[in-house]
Amino acid sequence: MIDASAAPLPAKRPVLLFACFGVNQELWLRWLRHHGPDIEIRVWPQIGLASEIDYVLAWEVPDGFWAQFGALKAIFSLGAGVERLLLDKDIPVGVEIVRMEDPSLEPAMAEYVLLHVLHHHRDMGRYAADQRQRLWRPAASPLASERTVGILGLGRLGRACAELLVTLGFDVRGWSRTANPMSGVTAFVGPGELDDFLSRCEVLVCTLALTPQTRGILDLALFRRLPKGALLINVGRGGHLNEPDLTTALDEGCLAGAVLDVLSAEPPPQDHPFWSDPRIAITPHISAPTRPQTAAQTVIAKIDRIERSAPVSGVVNRSQGY
Amino acid sequence: MIDASAAPLPAKRPVLLFACFGVNQELWLRWLRHHGPDIEIRVWPQIGLASEIDYVLAWEVPDGFWAQFGALKAIFSLGAGVERLLLDKDIPVGVEIVRMEDPSLEPAMAEYVLLHVLHHHRDMGRYAADQRQRLWRPAASPLASERTVGILGLGRLGRACAELLVTLGFDVRGWSRTANPMSGVTAFVGPGELDDFLSRCEVLVCTLALTPQTRGILDLALFRRLPKGALLINVGRGGHLNEPDLTTALDEGCLAGAVLDVLSAEPPPQDHPFWSDPRIAITPHISAPTRPQTAAQTVIAKIDRIERSAPVSGVVNRSQGY
Repeated sequence: MIDASAAPLPAKRPVLLFACFGVNQELWLRWLRHHGPDIEIRVWPQIGLASEIDYVLAWEVPDGFWAQFGALKAIFSLGAGVERLLLDKDIPVGVEIVRMEDPSLEPAMAEYVLLHVLHHHRDMGRYAADQRQRLWRPAASPLASERTVGILGLGRLGRACAELLVTLGFDVRGWSRTANPMSGVTAFVGPGELDDFLSRCEVLVCTLALTPQTRGILDLALFRRLPKGALLINVGRGGHLNEPDLTTALDEGCLAGAVLDVLSAEPPPQDHPFWSDPRIAITPHISAPTRPQTAAQTVIAKIDRIERSAPVSGVVNRSQGY
Repeated sequence: MIDASAAPLPAKRPVLLFACFGVNQELWLRWLRHHGPDIEIRVWPQIGLASEIDYVLAWEVPDGFWAQFGALKAIFSLGAGVERLLLDKDIPVGVEIVRMEDPSLEPAMAEYVLLHVLHHHRDMGRYAADQRQRLWRPAASPLASERTVGILGLGRLGRACAELLVTLGFDVRGWSRTANPMSGVTAFVGPGELDDFLSRCEVLVCTLALTPQTRGILDLALFRRLPKGALLINVGRGGHLNEPDLTTALDEGCLAGAVLDVLSAEPPPQDHPFWSDPRIAITPHISAPTRPQTAAQTVIAKIDRIERSAPVSGVVNRSQGY
């Protein structure tokens, strides 16, 4: 006979609040429950007793959202970029914010960047225009090794892009705030080496985090440092780009084109000039989508580690901004 | 004092005739002379005494061209495809025909194929159309591992494409006439396994040599074996494709699009329907251009080996057709 009184009291199950807007909620909940059967998952706005909530998985929450909770153990961002969370003054300074480290982000971002680098490298825009005019004008194209591609920002996503471009044989250079060396990539560090870095980038890829230091970094002064006819690929944040300056740079010819996966407003207003500019390709923030299946697994695994007082990766350095 | 009579008679310098039409002759001659200072290079039509000519580097020669020579040691094709040379009944059966093995062909071809696979994989055609309509419609995209790409033909160029696609994580399958296994690539061999091969190819890449067996292989019956909405990439030869069948397959929806770097006539006539079909992207035979600098070096190196009676790679098997 089992003596029930001898069994330990069941530990309180950790409580995760799902508070993400503009995502496929049903899919997320299915995967969170699949990977975390021992976690109680609540869905905003049915939060129950707010003081019982340990963790929040958040994306685009409304103003004032954070005021309602007790002592949270951590806040998980649904995306890799956390600039919105950091701007929210309601988040207590003691609560750790953890960025998304879904393992599918890096290959997806690298694919997207490579696709657009190759499109430019092999002059596909010109060939498409030729087809419309029934022109057959073959031209020699340089080897990948004869093309310089520069990556602004060598975080996880920037490094994944750089690695893949190196595999293809491109001449790759990277710029980062602090030294972050990579095999096969020419390194440039800090504001003092930015001009040198830019001077040979035939394609410039922005993968920076958005911080007060990087806001508006993609401006006319920077574009004028690039070799004439360069391509800009912005997969960072809309706030990195001075949008009117981009049009000026295209008009001046220092840029030949731009690929923008992020914009200052998403979606941009219907009268935004970029929609109809044939030199600019816009995509709706799809370069590196968080995938519920794998992302839910990383969030659950991190909760498990925090519950066991083990360290987790991806904790945001608030003073650094990423 | 040197006894001149004791010196060996100078060996006859090998004579190479350059007979290529529609290429940058000046550039080719510069590199041939650079790499082969000990070879006498003549340029058609200034051939001198035809019986002195040992080698011909040929591309798109006129009818009757081959009747004028004595015993040639080898004929070099300027391109990787040799189907035109093989159709020329004037070439004596005893003369070896050597295909171009410029080392820059493989990476260029793999780049081109990858570019178009990624463009389809990441739905860039739809996003470009959305931009023109000012629509912001982000959608999830599958992982590379969830996409099946099939390569028809696993010669040097097909293998280079397959390898790069495997590196990116795609599910790659290859079909070849005879077994030609590759790591990471699901192999299908011979006509009996063609239907099985086709049944899952969301992208079908044709890199076959053009032979009597492969002429017209890309026809409606084949397209109907593919999963609905597949993409065709033809980098083989125009003769592989039944062009009216392509339009039918696009109308039926078994194909969603096609990328054609080769056509039955190059350039196609001005009234060819493909020019204005938005589902078809045409490029002017630029997927894997022979580069004079490196290609001239391989030709000169092969002449050197033949002069020393050493075997050379790339000799065409005439009965096989490639």
